[in-house]
Amino acid sequence: MNRKIEIFDSSLRDGAQGSGISYSLDDKVKITLELDDLGVDYIEAGNPGSNQKDREYFEKINSMTLKNSRLVAFGSTRRKKCRAEDDGNVNSLLIANTPSISIFGKSWDYHVTDVLVTSLEENLEMIYDTIAYLKSMGKEMIFDAEHFFDGYKNNPDYALKSLKAAQDAGASVLALCDTNGGAFPDEIYEITKKVRSIFDVRIGIHVHNDGGMAVANSIMAVAAGATHVQGTFIGIGERCGNANLSTIIPNLQIKKGYDCIPEENLSKLTQSARYIAEVSNLTLDQSMPYIGNNAFAHKGGMHIDGIVKAKGSFEHIEPEAVGNSRKFIMSEVSGKNTVIKTINKIAPELTKDSPETKEIVDLLKKLEHGGYQFEGAEASFELLIRKHLGIYKPFFNLEYYKIIEEESKESNDNTASALIKVRVKDKTEMTAAEGNGPVNAIDKAIRKALGVFYMNLKNFHLSDYKVRVLDGKNTAAKVRVLIESTDGINFWSTIGVSTNIIEASVNALVDSIEYKLIKDLEKQAKNNGNDKDTENIE
Amino acid sequence: MNRKIEIFDSSLRDGAQGSGISYSLDDKVKITLELDDLGVDYIEAGNPGSNQKDREYFEKINSMTLKNSRLVAFGSTRRKKCRAEDDGNVNSLLIANTPSISIFGKSWDYHVTDVLVTSLEENLEMIYDTIAYLKSMGKEMIFDAEHFFDGYKNNPDYALKSLKAAQDAGASVLALCDTNGGAFPDEIYEITKKVRSIFDVRIGIHVHNDGGMAVANSIMAVAAGATHVQGTFIGIGERCGNANLSTIIPNLQIKKGYDCIPEENLSKLTQSARYIAEVSNLTLDQSMPYIGNNAFAHKGGMHIDGIVKAKGSFEHIEPEAVGNSRKFIMSEVSGKNTVIKTINKIAPELTKDSPETKEIVDLLKKLEHGGYQFEGAEASFELLIRKHLGIYKPFFNLEYYKIIEEESKESNDNTASALIKVRVKDKTEMTAAEGNGPVNAIDKAIRKALGVFYMNLKNFHLSDYKVRVLDGKNTAAKVRVLIESTDGINFWSTIGVSTNIIEASVNALVDSIEYKLIKDLEKQAKNNGNDKDTENIE
Repeated sequence: MNRKIEIFDSSLRDGAQGSGISYSLDDKVKITLELDDLGVDYIEAGNPGSNQKDREYFEKINSMTLKNSRLVAFGSTRRKKCRAEDDGNVNSLLIANTPSISIFGKSWDYHVTDVLVTSLEENLEMIYDTIAYLKSMGKEMIFDAEHFFDGYKNNPDYALKSLKAAQDAGASVLALCDTNGGAFPDEIYEITKKVRSIFDVRIGIHVHNDGGMAVANSIMAVAAGATHVQGTFIGIGERCGNANLSTIIPNLQIKKGYDCIPEENLSKLTQSARYIAEVSNLTLDQSMPYIGNNAFAHKGGMHIDGIVKAKGSFEHIEPEAVGNSRKFIMSEVSGKNTVIKTINKIAPELTKDSPETKEIVDLLKKLEHGGYQFEGAEASFELLIRKHLGIYKPFFNLEYYKIIEEESKESNDNTASALIKVRVKDKTEMTAAEGNGPVNAIDKAIRKALGVFYMNLKNFHLSDYKVRVLDGKNTAAKVRVLIESTDGINFWSTIGVSTNIIEASVNALVDSIEYKLIKDLEKQAKNNGNDKDTENIE
Repeated sequence: MNRKIEIFDSSLRDGAQGSGISYSLDDKVKITLELDDLGVDYIEAGNPGSNQKDREYFEKINSMTLKNSRLVAFGSTRRKKCRAEDDGNVNSLLIANTPSISIFGKSWDYHVTDVLVTSLEENLEMIYDTIAYLKSMGKEMIFDAEHFFDGYKNNPDYALKSLKAAQDAGASVLALCDTNGGAFPDEIYEITKKVRSIFDVRIGIHVHNDGGMAVANSIMAVAAGATHVQGTFIGIGERCGNANLSTIIPNLQIKKGYDCIPEENLSKLTQSARYIAEVSNLTLDQSMPYIGNNAFAHKGGMHIDGIVKAKGSFEHIEPEAVGNSRKFIMSEVSGKNTVIKTINKIAPELTKDSPETKEIVDLLKKLEHGGYQFEGAEASFELLIRKHLGIYKPFFNLEYYKIIEEESKESNDNTASALIKVRVKDKTEMTAAEGNGPVNAIDKAIRKALGVFYMNLKNFHLSDYKVRVLDGKNTAAKVRVLIESTDGINFWSTIGVSTNIIEASVNALVDSIEYKLIKDLEKQAKNNGNDKDTENIE
């Protein structure tokens, strides 16, 4: 039995209809190369007739060599009362010079009469003519039967006739579309099975996620005999998005033994998804199956305990199979198992049963009760452990700060400035800085002052800043600030909690700088063949 | 045929295992009341034995009256070699004083031997004893058969025995769990159907989303005869989350004619989801089915054309059915329908086609592009409309403010003070106040100064204060502050956006006070039989 399932990615075409997506030519090339590298079978990338950008894209990409993927241009059936060979839009598809072309046409009688406003017969001819013409020009033809499932439910005979027109004209794939995205898995299964039994060519599935079931619907179509799955790599697309290929591929390949992409590339899945999200300027949903940052993150103490006792007890696959990794989230509910991993990074001699471990868990609980939250603030947690174990020596002290924020309607002037004093060993440094708000001002001032002592602080910056008001009853409420920092290679997160947002921010900032200095010193000590003696100030 | 499907929400229990979720007591109460208002059947809210916060929650919530929902406490089967009535954890469930209790127990033999580390026989006794004991205390019992599907696939006899033990002990619901979240819709259907044919009590389904199919899996279980669906309202939960009830409810009720929540509440779905996301401090996925901001957003020109020609041509349901609305991205027509409702409150003579309406929509778009979000800030939006229509006269001007924040490690002293000057008509008032942080200080100072002119300001206070960092790349990022205020009867929300958190807070504060003064004056004018002439300052 042939277990090959063709993967057809439409991130650059249907995905680009998603709100907030706007690809540059360069973005499209980057994503194409990534998808090719991953090994999807088809990349649908646009319509060269519809805009200049797509035309330039095809020109550029045709000058490159793809290893695995076939490029696909996308367009619609010919206009009414016009020969396909005379239709400018149809001919423009040839400009793209792709081996394959996908043509969408109407399968739902209601759409033919009410949206296209033509006769049912003419629509069938439009499908036939367009595909036959492009096929005669040497193209592999894919027919996207728009609204196929809704059409089939309304008028099965007509929906099947639209497929027949495409098959008769030489289409190699009949892709059944759930364009409105509202179909149910059992319907998809039954209807796809019916289609599979009637037609000889490959059957494809193309579904949207409006009912939150696009992945399952694609899987059920495969169960019914479809061998070609269309979607977008991270599920982007109009409204609720398209079927998410980064979920479908491992579902089919790891769980069901189908052959979607080269086996050795499965472990690249996470990295590819994150790269494509980055190029698309999207924040990837952290809970996205398989590839999300939290897809294998455990928080409940019982689950963590289970995972430690028996692999696979709370995971459906090994995270490494898709290039992801397991995470234990630090929290009051997670208990000793999580904490000991972080403790052991600093003090390998301690165990789950050491009294220090219990003390740290108790301290953690107490702080979390007071509004701290160390999940997402691992660097602060590490500093906390160091402090508790007495192996922490501060690199600097922030002895004093004053922030002045002034706004005058008259002069339409708003300034925020910070004055600070830091001490490093026996030297003090006082300085001031202006900023875009008080937190920004003190951030700048601290870096300025410490820059006198520590050169390496120049090479790191904040990459995220989050504020959460706890039990926000009024402006005197407690505030939790989470800061993420990066030196371009590593990322680390720190936390501050206070009723005063500035104090909370300053605490998180100070932790971030301390952490960076500790790590740099450790690295340096290691390079000097000495990974113990981390000398710093008293 | 009974079409009732019980909806069981576990946002506060299983959902709280999600990364980044950390509910305060107050958050839990708010979410409970919202879910009750929406009309879910069960709210599972935690384990009173495991921590103090849950104990306080049950105490508080039991002092209130729920209209629709039954509260559920959650716990595990008794310990090994211990009578249920002697097990502290089991007994602690009774403290919660809930009508129902859900107990999870092992259905997968591998977990019994390798994680629980006991005999298969003892596990069945643990299930039986725990449920029988709590049932004898008058509780409705729900059995969560952990890992049921994986267990069934491995050892169907044993998995079924675990259900039998629960049914024999008096469980009213057998909830089949896909704890690892990796099951497929066809398996769920077959196995649930089998269980349905054997047992007499209600069958429930509880699935996780690790294969991206939790919604479909829940739906397939219902198709197989389950009548009780567990999930979390916006899909939060450990790893990839739990089954998303905000998708499942409309899928079942609108599409399949089941009865999940009171019919009249379906149109509250979007609002409830957004509220719960807000309380959970989560940014709701914009493409989330039914309730996402983009769930009915059209971008492709053909789709927009189609929608305009024929309703339903590119939408699976009418967005209004779930309280959402259609959006045309980058198009003039978007927004007017929503905006005109608010405009008419202030200027009943304006229509959708008035030029002022278009101007306000344009202004709104511009502000939203700049980070404003008027969805939770109706009072600020009303002020915006008043200002644009020229029917706004400020009650006061905040002419100047200066905030000083000082911290000294030496004296361990932290002070925040604000100095302000306000003008009301031709009088100015200058004053200062200290606070618990800079925003609190200026809040106090403004009230103090304005109290000289407006007595009624004493009777209102802030009821919520929220901060969200927008695209938080660093400490100079733009910040959105949302303030909710109340005078004990009415609630109103205002917004401020700035790169400076203090400025954003001050803008939201000023809006809140202005709104209160306008409403008071309107009420007063009405009482005087004159609802037009609202005299205030120039």
